[in-house]
Order: sequence, then structure tokens, then C-alpha cells
Amino acid sequence: MSDPLRLGIAGLGTVGTGVVKIIRQKASLLEDRAGRAVTLSAVSARSRDKDRGVNLSDYAWEDDPVALATRDDVDVFVELMGGSDGPAKAATEAALKAGKHVVTANKAMLAHNGQALAELAEKQGRSIRYEAAVAGGIPVIKSLMEGLAGNEITRVMGVMNGTCNYILTRMQATGQGYNALFEEADKLGFLEADPNLDVGGIDAGHKLAILSSIAFGTQVDFDAVELEGIQSITLEDINHAADMGYRIKLLGVAQLTGRGLEQRMSPCLVPASSPLGQLEGGTNMCVLEGDMVEQIVLRGPGAGEGPTASAVMGDVMDIARGVHLPTFGKPADKLEKVKPARAVTPAPYYLRMALEDKPGALAKVATVLGEAGISIDRMRQYRHDDSTAPVLVVTHKTTRSALDTALEAMSKLDVMAQSPVALRIETV
Amino acid sequence: MSDPLRLGIAGLGTVGTGVVKIIRQKASLLEDRAGRAVTLSAVSARSRDKDRGVNLSDYAWEDDPVALATRDDVDVFVELMGGSDGPAKAATEAALKAGKHVVTANKAMLAHNGQALAELAEKQGRSIRYEAAVAGGIPVIKSLMEGLAGNEITRVMGVMNGTCNYILTRMQATGQGYNALFEEADKLGFLEADPNLDVGGIDAGHKLAILSSIAFGTQVDFDAVELEGIQSITLEDINHAADMGYRIKLLGVAQLTGRGLEQRMSPCLVPASSPLGQLEGGTNMCVLEGDMVEQIVLRGPGAGEGPTASAVMGDVMDIARGVHLPTFGKPADKLEKVKPARAVTPAPYYLRMALEDKPGALAKVATVLGEAGISIDRMRQYRHDDSTAPVLVVTHKTTRSALDTALEAMSKLDVMAQSPVALRIETV
Repeated sequence: MSDPLRLGIAGLGTVGTGVVKIIRQKASLLEDRAGRAVTLSAVSARSRDKDRGVNLSDYAWEDDPVALATRDDVDVFVELMGGSDGPAKAATEAALKAGKHVVTANKAMLAHNGQALAELAEKQGRSIRYEAAVAGGIPVIKSLMEGLAGNEITRVMGVMNGTCNYILTRMQATGQGYNALFEEADKLGFLEADPNLDVGGIDAGHKLAILSSIAFGTQVDFDAVELEGIQSITLEDINHAADMGYRIKLLGVAQLTGRGLEQRMSPCLVPASSPLGQLEGGTNMCVLEGDMVEQIVLRGPGAGEGPTASAVMGDVMDIARGVHLPTFGKPADKLEKVKPARAVTPAPYYLRMALEDKPGALAKVATVLGEAGISIDRMRQYRHDDSTAPVLVVTHKTTRSALDTALEAMSKLDVMAQSPVALRIETV
Repeated sequence: MSDPLRLGIAGLGTVGTGVVKIIRQKASLLEDRAGRAVTLSAVSARSRDKDRGVNLSDYAWEDDPVALATRDDVDVFVELMGGSDGPAKAATEAALKAGKHVVTANKAMLAHNGQALAELAEKQGRSIRYEAAVAGGIPVIKSLMEGLAGNEITRVMGVMNGTCNYILTRMQATGQGYNALFEEADKLGFLEADPNLDVGGIDAGHKLAILSSIAFGTQVDFDAVELEGIQSITLEDINHAADMGYRIKLLGVAQLTGRGLEQRMSPCLVPASSPLGQLEGGTNMCVLEGDMVEQIVLRGPGAGEGPTASAVMGDVMDIARGVHLPTFGKPADKLEKVKPARAVTPAPYYLRMALEDKPGALAKVATVLGEAGISIDRMRQYRHDDSTAPVLVVTHKTTRSALDTALEAMSKLDVMAQSPVALRIETV
């Protein structure tokens, strides 16, 4: 174990630069902790000339990440380029084939190609580690795969997109609408180049698909994640939810049920007094539930140079210390292909409707709900200034399919001024 | 890696029984995750005949834990007996000397003998793992030692005694005093045989000493932990703190300062809106701060059969997977012996005094504070029915030594009806 562990880093954005700084500034601490030196051999990025505030002259430069990944003086390929396919995947595959370990922060690559990469890594006897891909600085992958290895995991939940949580909590705090806060987040640089990755729930969905695989020993199946973004959440929803003691969060939930694997990433109501409900701004939170451990809640920064570099280095240090685990916690050929189940776990739902101001409108809605077998816990009709009446319903526990039946029937009523909004109330 | 990993368990209380159940019920899950079977060879406990609700007839029985620890068919000695010395330590040493790995939940043993045991384990090339010793089911050792291995740790904090947190939060919720809630906790079986281990902060202090060692690469030094229990906390303190937006928690704080290692386990005020302030009942919380990761908060059950057995099994699974780390994250001979520093980090303090109802009493106290260089942020004098006037002071940031100077001078004033209570207000 006394040979140095030599890294090659591809991608020198904030995270890559953060990792270089740690390697340069903490050499002796890392060596004491790992029992061997951790060194950097070579780097690769799009632009060689950009000033990144860190001296790169000690390291070889490669324009081509594949060339970097396969260098003789690289033991671990650190992939920080991003993108589900393209150069990131090509270089990751090349690294594994050349007998290198891989550390990556690339949730999209793993969500789309996790199973194939796990099989390749296993065939080569090498590790792919990706703590930084999920919930930034929070050691959630490690906690789930290692710390809770004696548990049947029963449910995994997470608020894992800081931008969405920023927009939702700022809507409540400032009384501004979604569009204004979307623009504010954009100005602050919080949004991905394609903002739908954030507000459409795709980025968080990638993370959930990865966590599901580890939790339930299943093949990563991002396409089966039910995705719903936060674009349709109005200030009224947030205020109504608050009135009833809830907060709205873009919440990921994964559960293995008798009917298949449920993976949902959608805006949900959670109790305002719960840890999830109290989570403000860009912070992330993961909730891990197991048959033995009951419930563990992990909270921390979900992005940023320091936290993400911290997660990357945690993986690097494990490799330096000789830790080698299967990519998703079980050998790839033992990961099961499970059929997706659409929200079969019953839950109460929040419904917001705008009814035409006609006699009997409310009765028609109540009838539709009753016919679908959905009973009403609370209903409020608000005062209104125009010709439509805002009506809120909180149902008792019901299934999503009963709810869909009701929503379908409602769409045919002649009293709906617009499509109803339906949000699940998650028990946390 | 295909040989089974064979355990011997000494101590069959709730935790030991919980581990036996996991081994029996989850054999195939554990084998898939570890890449090898995890089996149980032998058990040891005080009474052989007690019905523990689990079938032990498949396993050899040893009356003597040392004999169990050194059996040829045991690879990992699981020590769940407790006690800082005596049989637990003797059997742990015997196991290491016989080339076995050790998994333990014994915080007292590690707090008192951690350095010697780490040196022995290292000499033998074996692991001592102890996730269950700190904060029950929360994977805090793993997060700190492995997940944050790329960080200089700047501070570690924790509410790690569920009984104390139960008493303190119930005082606020019910309006009952300390003695009544102490009795309630006792009736519920929440207290150790020696209750001072809980309410005197000793148990939580053991845990803090272990976390400090990992965080700062120092030799475990429990004797240097400043210990203060919750026995002197009154309902008035709790209510006054709440009025000012704080909660009182038995909080452990460890920080490496230029003047030495600060380790405090004492009742502190924390903001009511912070995750620590919101922690209710028997739940534990650990806060880990590093220069890269900023702040990670981990929350979960601090005790109980399932959560503690989950932590024990996490360690067993790591050993089964071939993970081998130095006991406190660095080789034992690199762990530094650091001198203790008594609360050198300045902080605001909460002071509660009972003054004789005499003219000039308040002026005398204010003068003493001023002479010690302590400035006052807020002061309240409450209406009183007897001859003493309750006075509360919140100071601006000051050092503990300035405060001690002031408290010493106050004790000589002729206006103090009783000794003042001084609680630190921790920035979280």
C-alpha cells in the first residue's frame, strides 16, 4: 500500500479545481489518512489557457480525456466533465478497460448507463465511485451502501435539487410567483444550461434512480422514474399548503412494493414541522429508512466547489485505502430488473381546483370523488373576485389510480375552469 | 473472498439479540452484498437459560467471553457486553492477539482504552470497528472517517444522549421540573444503572472523545472532556431560553484550536430554529463541519435494538467486504497527543442569577461583569414574590476564562442568593 495513488482529472470546472486544490494543499493529511500519498499526474479540460486560480504546471496536460484516462501514470480516472454520453462515457469506459478505477460526479451518466458501466467495472475488477453524483457533500451513497448494509431498505426519500428548493422556499418567503423566482435563480447562476434539468425534476430524478438501485438491489432504471417538475406550483398552492401546516418540496421517493418499484420525483406536501419541511434554500436532505435502523436523515450542501470536491475526495480516499465494492452494492449480475409500479402506495392528496361559479359545481366535484372511492378529509372554498371559485380538497388516503380516475372524470365536467392540480401528501 | 465470515458474539442483550436476528433472517441479502456468507459460530452471555426470543441452538455456547473471542471458528469478535474494563477489554485484547477483528458498541472501553487498543489492533493487522458506540444507528463514524476524509475537520458537535434530550424536551413540553422528568425517564427504563452516566454527561462525553480523535487525528482523551450534566437545568432556564428563541441541549462540541483541543459536553443554548434546536425526544444528531464540505447534519435513533444492531452489522459487512482502516482513521503512531484547551473559543453566555432584593444589587453584578471585560447584550429582571430577584443576562461573546473571573468575583458579592448558572450559547 505504500505506492502513491495517482489521479488523472478530466474536467476543470469549480469541482475539478476544488479537487486539485485539496491534492495540493492537504498532501500530508491525505497521506496520513490513506497510508499512502495521493498525487495528481495529469489533467484535461476544454480550454488549456483559462486561469483557474490554481497552478497546473506540475501536471501533464491532455486535450483528449480518453488519452488522459488511459495514461500509464494514472491509477484513478476522475471524471468531472458531465453529460450522460459522449466524452464522459467514452473516457470512463476507456479508463475501466485500461484497468483504472473511476471516480465521477456524473449522475446523468450513471442514471442512463449505470448497469453497463457496473458490468464493465466488475469484469475489469475495478471500482466506479460516485458519492458526488448524489446530494453533493452529503455522504449518502456511503451511508446507504455501507452503513446500512445490514438493513432491508424500506424507503428512500430526498430533496436533492437545491435550485428547486431555493425557488419554492423563496416563493413562500417573498410572496413572489414562480416566474419571478425562476428569473432570480437564473440571475444567480443556479440553473443548468437547460433549466428543465432542474425545474423539470430530471437532475433530481437521476439521483433518485441511483439511490433506488443501491437501496433495493435493482438495475438503475431512470426511465421508470415518474417525473413531475415544479413549474405548475403557484404561490396559492404554497400558501394554501402553509395554511394547513405543510410545505411543498420537490421530493424524490423510492419504495419497493409487492407490485414493483415505485420511483417518484414530484412536488409533494410534507409536514412543516418535519426535517424535510424545515429544509430551506439550496440545502439537500436525504431520508433513508430501513427495517432495523428506522429512519436516518442526512442534511448538507447539495452543490458547490467545496462540498462536491469533498465527496469526490471521499471516494478517492476509499480507493487509496483499498476499499473495493461493487458499483451499486451488489454484484452487477445480482441486480434485479424490477418492473416499475406507479405510485401504488396510498397517500392523501392535495387538490386545487378552479370551479365555474355555477350552482351545483361543488356537488359535481364531490360526486366524482365519491364515485372514485375517494373520501374527503378537508375542503375549503375561498372567496373569489372573478367568475371562478378556488376550491381546495385534502383527501383521505387513496391510490394514485383512484385519483387518476377522478381527475379523468373531472376533466369531463362542465364546471372546471382549468385543470386541477393534484399533489401527493407524503408521510415523513 | 468466498469463505464465510464467521462471527462470535459476546453479550446477548437487546443489541446482541438484534444482531443474531439479522444474521438468521437476512443471510442471502448479506451474502449478496458482501460477496460471501456472514455466519455465526458461537455466542456468550451471562445467563445461558434466559429466553431471548431467538433460537440459539445452532451456535456453540461459551461461558467465558475470552474463550469465545479466541475460538478457531471465529473471524470477528463482536463485543456487546459493555464496561470500560473487565471482561469486555480482556476479551477484546484476547481477540486481537488471536488475529480476530473486533466489532464493538462499547464507547466506555474506547474512550478509556482507545489508544492502547488501536496500537494493539495495528500491530496485529486487524480492525476494531465501533459505529454502534456513537449515536446508535447514525453512520457518523463512517461519514467522518471515510466520507469526509478529504477535509480538515473544523468542528464536531452532537446531541448524543437520548435520555437527556428526552428529559429536556419533555420539561419544555409538559412544564414539569427536572426531578419529575428524571423519574419519568427512570420508569420508562431510559436510564443507565448509574444514571449519572446519562444525566452527568459521561456517556455522551465518551462518544465525543471518540469523535474528536477521528476528527482531529488526536489520541482519545476522555479525561480532558469538560463535563457538565443537566441536573442543574431548571424549568425557568428552559422557559427563559425559549422566550429568547433558544433551546437548551446537552451538546458536545469539539474543536482543535491554536491553544489545544477543546472538548466540551455541557448544556448549551442553541437557536430554536436550527436543526439542533428542533431535535425532540430521544433522537440523536451529529453535526460535522469541514473546510471543504461546510456542514453535514446527521439525525437518527441513538439507541434501541434495531438501530444499534444496524450499526454493528454495518461494521461486520465492511469487514466481510475486505475494508480495513486504522482504528481512528490514521495509524495509531500518528495520532497526536494534544493538550486540552478549556473553552477558548469565545461565545455569548446565558447567566441566571438570584439577587437579594437590596438597592444596588444589580449594579454590583453589572460592575463585576464590566471589570471582567464582559459586555451585556440583554438583561432581564423578572418580577419576584420572595426576597430574591431573578435576573437573566445574555452576554456578548466572551471567553470562558473571563466568565470564570466574573463568576469568581460574583461569588464574593453579598447580594447573590445562590450560585449563578452559566450556559454557553453555541453558534450552530
